[in-house]
Amino acid sequence: MRILGLDPGSRKTGVGIIDGERLVHAETLRLGDGPMPERLGLIFSELRRLIAEHRPDVAAVETVFMSRNAQSAIKLGQARGAAICAAVEAGLEVHEYAPTAIKQAIVGRGRAGKEQVQHMVRAILKLDFDPGEDAHDALAAALCHHHTAQTASRLPPGVVLR
Amino acid sequence: MRILGLDPGSRKTGVGIIDGERLVHAETLRLGDGPMPERLGLIFSELRRLIAEHRPDVAAVETVFMSRNAQSAIKLGQARGAAICAAVEAGLEVHEYAPTAIKQAIVGRGRAGKEQVQHMVRAILKLDFDPGEDAHDALAAALCHHHTAQTASRLPPGVVLR
Repeated sequence: MRILGLDPGSRKTGVGIIDGERLVHAETLRLGDGPMPERLGLIFSELRRLIAEHRPDVAAVETVFMSRNAQSAIKLGQARGAAICAAVEAGLEVHEYAPTAIKQAIVGRGRAGKEQVQHMVRAILKLDFDPGEDAHDALAAALCHHHTAQTASRLPPGVVLR
Repeated sequence: MRILGLDPGSRKTGVGIIDGERLVHAETLRLGDGPMPERLGLIFSELRRLIAEHRPDVAAVETVFMSRNAQSAIKLGQARGAAICAAVEAGLEVHEYAPTAIKQAIVGRGRAGKEQVQHMVRAILKLDFDPGEDAHDALAAALCHHHTAQTASRLPPGVVLR
């Protein structure tokens, strides 16, 4: 199963694509500081291009519950809306995971620090380079989905998690 | 000039299309209470359908600065992101207007009440029906753009507003 992980933001959007625990592609979309509609269009069209190129089966994104203020929450929400739209439009199911669920899946502790998560993402995927903060977060969401889907497939028939 | 006005929301999204001060189409997209990615996909695909059918030249949407809390701001932002993406993807320029600018354009007072704005929207467009709150807001954004564009075109050459 090929998984597209997303870390949407209005200035940078992280993208990470994996086949199980193998890296396929990691990229940070830099959206510049032009008008917001232009940046949202860029998120959508760049993701459409990457989806067409790498053909993931499913998408994963971190749930966001809080923000510095309403204005930054709306900006972040807009970027998420554009990114999720690109995935849905391409026929992908989009799975959302809480930050604690992602940390739990990657490090084994829901309260792990950011650096610890990034370290484990590189270790699991055997990366010998730093993909950058945003792509790290995107890969973490993708790995969380991989882990969750694997765990679910190992359960006896009829048992459903959560 | 045909203008698409948008009032995006994660449960309902208002759509209003005008030719100058003539109504072309008013509709409220009801997005149900399914998973958020599904609703965002619906905003995108329904707007794409309406844009293909009515071929507006430009889009207008109200700027949002605040919200009850971060969670509702992110939801609202996501809906805005999906709606703006649909317009940008169709090649439309998207103009954002502050709530006070919209009230000023429709009623002549930046602090006018919601009912007053709705009343004036119906009066200007000569509507003999109630298009509903969300479509009203979408039509108000569209009329604000119409008014702003008209004012700009009446200025002497070389004079630029704002």
